[in-house]
Amino acid sequence: MPQISDDQTEVIKPEMPVLKNDRFLRALFRQPVDKTPVWLMRQAGRYLPEYREVRSQAGNFMSLCKNPALACEVTLQPLRRFELDAAILFSDILTIPDAMGQGLYFVEGEGPKFRKVIRTGKDVEKIPDVDISRDLSYVTDAVSLIRRELEGRAPLIGFAGSPWTLATYMIEGGSSKDFREAKQFLYTHPTDMHHLLDKLAGVVIDYLNAQIVAGVQAVQIFDTWGGLLTSAAYEEFSLKYMEKIIKNLIRHSDGRAIPIIIFTKGGGQWLELQAETGATALGLDWSTEIGRSRRRVGGQVALQGNLDPSVLYSTEAVIRTEVGAVLSSFGVGEGHVFNLGHGITPGVPPENVGIFVDAVHELSAKYHEESTK
Amino acid sequence: MPQISDDQTEVIKPEMPVLKNDRFLRALFRQPVDKTPVWLMRQAGRYLPEYREVRSQAGNFMSLCKNPALACEVTLQPLRRFELDAAILFSDILTIPDAMGQGLYFVEGEGPKFRKVIRTGKDVEKIPDVDISRDLSYVTDAVSLIRRELEGRAPLIGFAGSPWTLATYMIEGGSSKDFREAKQFLYTHPTDMHHLLDKLAGVVIDYLNAQIVAGVQAVQIFDTWGGLLTSAAYEEFSLKYMEKIIKNLIRHSDGRAIPIIIFTKGGGQWLELQAETGATALGLDWSTEIGRSRRRVGGQVALQGNLDPSVLYSTEAVIRTEVGAVLSSFGVGEGHVFNLGHGITPGVPPENVGIFVDAVHELSAKYHEESTK
Repeated sequence: MPQISDDQTEVIKPEMPVLKNDRFLRALFRQPVDKTPVWLMRQAGRYLPEYREVRSQAGNFMSLCKNPALACEVTLQPLRRFELDAAILFSDILTIPDAMGQGLYFVEGEGPKFRKVIRTGKDVEKIPDVDISRDLSYVTDAVSLIRRELEGRAPLIGFAGSPWTLATYMIEGGSSKDFREAKQFLYTHPTDMHHLLDKLAGVVIDYLNAQIVAGVQAVQIFDTWGGLLTSAAYEEFSLKYMEKIIKNLIRHSDGRAIPIIIFTKGGGQWLELQAETGATALGLDWSTEIGRSRRRVGGQVALQGNLDPSVLYSTEAVIRTEVGAVLSSFGVGEGHVFNLGHGITPGVPPENVGIFVDAVHELSAKYHEESTK
Repeated sequence: MPQISDDQTEVIKPEMPVLKNDRFLRALFRQPVDKTPVWLMRQAGRYLPEYREVRSQAGNFMSLCKNPALACEVTLQPLRRFELDAAILFSDILTIPDAMGQGLYFVEGEGPKFRKVIRTGKDVEKIPDVDISRDLSYVTDAVSLIRRELEGRAPLIGFAGSPWTLATYMIEGGSSKDFREAKQFLYTHPTDMHHLLDKLAGVVIDYLNAQIVAGVQAVQIFDTWGGLLTSAAYEEFSLKYMEKIIKNLIRHSDGRAIPIIIFTKGGGQWLELQAETGATALGLDWSTEIGRSRRRVGGQVALQGNLDPSVLYSTEAVIRTEVGAVLSSFGVGEGHVFNLGHGITPGVPPENVGIFVDAVHELSAKYHEESTK
């Protein structure tokens, strides 16, 4: 098992700011907390006017990702407005295919596109090696900067896409409605698909380890398209590679694991399998009932989620009712990180995010009284 | 419980052709069959060149739906090519909102659109009543014609959209990516939403009963967007209305139920709830493991599904392997109707459908040997 040597361990280096709010990390390890910690997927994003302003300064989306000072700024923006219990690195899962020379570009309103697509085993072979310290130093630079600027206010989450999810973009050449090319590649050329996934898993391991060394205190793997697979294909082509990543993440020198969250959208049927990977926590989408999920796997992992993101378009009363319903479904005790069941959408009024975050803290206290007595 | 009076019961009228292949109906009632019956959602569709020819004759999609002779022709097309065990009425779930005067039209490549949208309780109140015999007689005319033309070769399936699924289109004004308006309406105006769903359920009941009287021998409710709801909202806003429909379908005069299949895409986590509705069978999407589903609810209902539709883009060998995997997962015994886990997509080569249908029949025989001894 790889380890962070003492001189690399920025997370415990004395010059790093002391963490003042460890609710999120404690909840991931199912330890007692006073209130349920909360953060939002895509919390640094287009629903915030101050984000849109920085974004327009940066020119385009990838220039924003590649500028550590601006990436740091937008990472911190939501924490200035809301009492969030974690920050998440502002970046994109497609930095890896971009570093693989696939020619990533964005078309406004159409999402990401790639100039190159993977359609054969030869295409897979030709993918160049990625050297994180050369090709993705803008990400680790952003991590170090954010850790400093956060001043210990909340832990910083790093992330990557799952190999399967990254592969779908590289094969389709962008987003897709039915993932026809990616599925056809999987069914017709499974060996080449495994070769591609293995290559991606290797880069994700290096990438997340570099983020950990640079200062992230937890990592999340976004398996956005795992739910499009059959149960058997999910195990073979997505979960197996997430497990490989988890097993190869570096640890603190005292042996403590860096907590790792895996989130398969549409993966609520496979929680038992996910819990066997060694992940610290499982992200739940909003279609998955959190109380039942806790009864299924709560003895093994923490759970993260899972308010329907559409609730944030509603009223204060409805937001509080729905937050209360998720808390009550999870019930008394530890191991819950509150979040949405998917990323926040651009049209949400920022004030509703404040109502949401405050409701989680206020309404959750009673579920932790026993634990903190 | 309403019943079909003897003089209305075309399904058992002596002048109706005798059914020569009852595998599908037997499997729905979990009775012994020699081979697993198979049909495909959207089997009459764009992947067939003969369909595209009739479609272009008709002018547009709705003209095709509204012309009983052409609807009959395209319904029968796939049965001429493949050894299918059921025919499904060619129509669209949006015939009901169309009959409600919502101004349905289709934009090539963009899917259905409505000129009117539902955004307030007043909009719901203003929806005009639908008289099936006046507004949707083109559907029942098509059913009678197809029943005659089928000459008993296979049973005919009728269908409707679930109230929730129909409501999403009426509120959004078409398809949607995130169903923001429909979700906002649900969370912010639940009483108006229930009013809309109740109105839709009433029309669906009349519509399916009219199809049964005209000759369909089974019905399916397509709950295409049920999987976008939370578990609690699914029960309250989708499942409850499907249950109401099921409880109000007419029966044969001898008390036999018309078999009813409900299919919630993304609903694999809620099979136990679905099995309590009184449905004869549950449709499974391809992400749901059929063997485990059978262990969960196979004592109560038949199961329909659930090959990943993308497999049809692959090779003969892969199609046969994947069909074999679904059959083996379901295992020995009765109560399985083979299908895709979602509608067939337009780019599938028709010859692969033939390979698929033949593989189901050939590879399934051994799972039924005990039952038919």
